[in-house]
Amino acid sequence: MKITRMHGAGGKVMQELIKDVILKNLEITSVNGGIGLESLDDSATIPIGDKEIVFTVDGHTVKPIFFPGGDIGRLAVSGTVNDLAVMGAKPLALSLSLIIPEGFNLEDLEKIVKSINETSKEAEVAIITGDTKVSDGVDDIIISTAGIGIVDRGKAIRDCNVQEGDAIIVSGNIGEHGLAILLSREGFDFETNIKSDVAPINKLIERVLEEGIQINAMKDPTRGGLADALNEMAEKSNIGITIFEDKIPISDEVQSICDILGLDPLTIANEGKVVMAVKKEDAERCLEILREHPLGKNAEIIGYATKEHKGVIIETIVGRRIVDMPIGDPIPRVC
Amino acid sequence: MKITRMHGAGGKVMQELIKDVILKNLEITSVNGGIGLESLDDSATIPIGDKEIVFTVDGHTVKPIFFPGGDIGRLAVSGTVNDLAVMGAKPLALSLSLIIPEGFNLEDLEKIVKSINETSKEAEVAIITGDTKVSDGVDDIIISTAGIGIVDRGKAIRDCNVQEGDAIIVSGNIGEHGLAILLSREGFDFETNIKSDVAPINKLIERVLEEGIQINAMKDPTRGGLADALNEMAEKSNIGITIFEDKIPISDEVQSICDILGLDPLTIANEGKVVMAVKKEDAERCLEILREHPLGKNAEIIGYATKEHKGVIIETIVGRRIVDMPIGDPIPRVC
Repeated sequence: MKITRMHGAGGKVMQELIKDVILKNLEITSVNGGIGLESLDDSATIPIGDKEIVFTVDGHTVKPIFFPGGDIGRLAVSGTVNDLAVMGAKPLALSLSLIIPEGFNLEDLEKIVKSINETSKEAEVAIITGDTKVSDGVDDIIISTAGIGIVDRGKAIRDCNVQEGDAIIVSGNIGEHGLAILLSREGFDFETNIKSDVAPINKLIERVLEEGIQINAMKDPTRGGLADALNEMAEKSNIGITIFEDKIPISDEVQSICDILGLDPLTIANEGKVVMAVKKEDAERCLEILREHPLGKNAEIIGYATKEHKGVIIETIVGRRIVDMPIGDPIPRVC
Repeated sequence: MKITRMHGAGGKVMQELIKDVILKNLEITSVNGGIGLESLDDSATIPIGDKEIVFTVDGHTVKPIFFPGGDIGRLAVSGTVNDLAVMGAKPLALSLSLIIPEGFNLEDLEKIVKSINETSKEAEVAIITGDTKVSDGVDDIIISTAGIGIVDRGKAIRDCNVQEGDAIIVSGNIGEHGLAILLSREGFDFETNIKSDVAPINKLIERVLEEGIQINAMKDPTRGGLADALNEMAEKSNIGITIFEDKIPISDEVQSICDILGLDPLTIANEGKVVMAVKKEDAERCLEILREHPLGKNAEIIGYATKEHKGVIIETIVGRRIVDMPIGDPIPRVC
């Protein structure tokens, strides 16, 4: 059997590959009783004394490497910082593994490194170790970024702890990253201002935690979009999530382009957003705090967790429907 | 200007790229006064309480992915474990970032994951987090492995602390990994049994440390080989190193193939060796301990550190010569 692109798209097919080929064949997958590989959470943890080291990795390939709103360097830093931040951890340091094609422009490399630097300063996270390989077997630069954060022991926020009655909050407009990439890659002839939302959101999440808001579960809705993140949170927490279509923050522009292309914005990747399951009583205050920050100004309470059904259900003006976990990459139906 | 393969070969050209393009453009490169990116050591560290978290990364691309003595999976685990171990750290956990080409054989992936598992058990290091991407922009699988280890605060062993009089010890036969790869990639028609030495050597190093041997500096001689490792150690420690050709452990087979191909075995990569600068008085005992372990049975004291010259000098039966840092990849002179 051959690997297909569907295996890497952050949907059901990928989950099966990871479970059947990777998890099944690895025997030592956690340390000191911390969160391990089999949790398939945004990060793993290693308990050490009264702290837990939080550890994650993301391999970044994106076409084009420079896109509206960002570039692969900003993506590489933000993606990893956000995976640490949604665990409730304080991101400390990143490693950079660069795989550079032979013949790559040195000026482009410099542009990417400068963007990495700017994003690292924005997130206040250091780049402390790295590795560089040059290869004739890659078309474009690949950046794999691992990250270390720290959290008090037992305080890591999981994606599997959504509680009945929790408010489901998303920190801003969805669908912008994936759509910006799709439009610039496929060369659709739309006049749009759609930009990727790629950004490190650790400072935003820190604000909420500092204020003592009880976040029961958290995830960043990247590959597979909000649909994937909510389904994972619901399934792992053994609970249902109901969301309201009219509450989901989305720009008119993203909505209309999705309508034209036949795309479901719920399945499109975000790179600067967080989904939180917040204790009901804390939800309004959480929303206020999020909205005070530029990266959270469009935050909304989009639904709630319930034991009345399993999975994710969306209420629309024409009725209720199930929000399935995406199978693979969102493909424009016009193609 | 374009990036060439020389930029990734672990020699002078690569060092310049890293210093001029990467280091120069990054501003936050260490945490809490730990060992940072600018040290260009095998790992970085983050001091936390009375410990230091040790952090490193390696991107693994190798052709062919299955080679005599190992495969990319074993290489990915060993490379990162060894980078932690040569800091004097206990490796705890790895992250795996897989970039898999579209059309890759699922059976090959499974073989690689099984090899990762075997090597992780051998090293007693967990795989706790990962990421999988599928790409049509890569010819072959790429595995980027980051690793976390732990060491008592202030006890990390640097590559820049070689002391005058230190014995220089190498843990076994050199040149086997690079030569095994070269022969199997280029399809030379030699009848050889040369196998890569790829192995996790943390247990070997642990034995030496447990016995209280004073290791002043340590490095794994991977890309660029022993020549690169010794030059880096000498330069960073501001000291000279003299080695003796007849003391360098090398198999007859590796030596003869190097002679035929016009290769200098000192510049060929190893993936299961360590170079140590050991306090003179501890050197013989260190050698004994190393030789008791299967991975150290061919260990030798190959020279000493001196203030009488800079750089690395080799004494041969026909006289002394300078061992230069390699410029780029070793290229067989017959090609």
